[in-house]
Amino acid sequence: MRYEELTIEGRNAVLEAFRSGKTIDKLFVLEGSQDGPIRSITREAKKHDTIVNFVTKERLDQLSETKKHQGVIAFAAAYEYADVEDMLKLAEEKGEPPFLLLLDNIEDPHNLGAIIRTANLAGAHGVIIPKRRAVGLTATVAKTSAGAINYTPVAKVTNLSKTIQELKEKGMWFVCADMDGTTMYELDLKGPIGLVIGSEGEGVGKLVKEHCDFAAAIPMAGEIDSLNASVAAGVLAYEIVRQRRQ
Amino acid sequence: MRYEELTIEGRNAVLEAFRSGKTIDKLFVLEGSQDGPIRSITREAKKHDTIVNFVTKERLDQLSETKKHQGVIAFAAAYEYADVEDMLKLAEEKGEPPFLLLLDNIEDPHNLGAIIRTANLAGAHGVIIPKRRAVGLTATVAKTSAGAINYTPVAKVTNLSKTIQELKEKGMWFVCADMDGTTMYELDLKGPIGLVIGSEGEGVGKLVKEHCDFAAAIPMAGEIDSLNASVAAGVLAYEIVRQRRQ
Repeated sequence: MRYEELTIEGRNAVLEAFRSGKTIDKLFVLEGSQDGPIRSITREAKKHDTIVNFVTKERLDQLSETKKHQGVIAFAAAYEYADVEDMLKLAEEKGEPPFLLLLDNIEDPHNLGAIIRTANLAGAHGVIIPKRRAVGLTATVAKTSAGAINYTPVAKVTNLSKTIQELKEKGMWFVCADMDGTTMYELDLKGPIGLVIGSEGEGVGKLVKEHCDFAAAIPMAGEIDSLNASVAAGVLAYEIVRQRRQ
Repeated sequence: MRYEELTIEGRNAVLEAFRSGKTIDKLFVLEGSQDGPIRSITREAKKHDTIVNFVTKERLDQLSETKKHQGVIAFAAAYEYADVEDMLKLAEEKGEPPFLLLLDNIEDPHNLGAIIRTANLAGAHGVIIPKRRAVGLTATVAKTSAGAINYTPVAKVTNLSKTIQELKEKGMWFVCADMDGTTMYELDLKGPIGLVIGSEGEGVGKLVKEHCDFAAAIPMAGEIDSLNASVAAGVLAYEIVRQRRQ
């Protein structure tokens, strides 16, 4: 299993977890805490783009397993994040052109889990998420992925645009989901490809979009605005599958 | 707006709601209640296939808005359910061959909402759900549908197999999602069609499946079992969209 959730409680334990490079998905700190160790912890959190939740003592007691939290509890995904390189290697081993999913600001853990699940079944070689603002690999993500998290590599990168640029230099093409793009059936989505999916509210960010080679639109007939992000990812991923099979 | 959620509290109010034909999505009754009015209510619930949840007084107090629940609270969707006939009429008005989604035992409200959302954008003329065992149009469904519930008609039918038979007599074809079916790209999914989606655990029920003309499989490359139900519905619905555009 690549995934396991860890609860880390107490000041030293949490600080140590940050310093050892563990990925902290969620951090809960007693509201009003201002002493030295807590300040060190929130400084580390800022450095690692971890969102700090200030909560009441009651909430901490509820979250605590040891009942010795000292005003701070962190949840870490004991998940072995992959490198993007591993994904390219996986594609090579399978003798397939690389097929990656890149998620820009997907904040709903159910969507992230469902997308990792889709990536696994559509034969993608990995899922890339940005460190900043995205949801991490929490217990909800693991559950919603229906086990896919143990098979499909997930990498966390500092800068999605930079990763796209680097992969373009290696011959990959990038297509982003965009309502104003070209209808997906009219694009050539074969070959080494990265599919970029944005959040439901905002879509793919402007900067990331500028680094993509194409923008693909799912045809929409109805009255409402957009598909659920994981459904949109599924529809686009399977258009790639269809074209690859031809 | 076609949708609004109503909380109905108190014995007479709940009994009256059942008798007037309102669709009760959820019913909460104080555990241990055995008197006449409560028995009448549970009898009505059985008749209408409403699941009865026996709960503690604390839970009822928590659910209550009026604080005068008398041991019984019902949640009704003040949703104007459509008739299947309305959907066929809608297709005719648009000059399109009918395209319906039928859901067999989808129990997760997030999935139901996401599927109604997909139905709207894929240009389906309606969604048909069975009365029994399926989740109703609750507030969660309404929210997850992102407003689609106000545009795409949803009908509740007593017997999905019977509805399929009736629609087949009117010239419709039915395809069910089935991992052991023919790869979807190899089927002709144009023309008047009903797409049947089952629950994630069980798939489409045996009897319903027997009434379908085809079984369509989404190609699956990975290690895990199945896609999320709403993602599978999206991928199949958009294969129908693709074929219809040709």
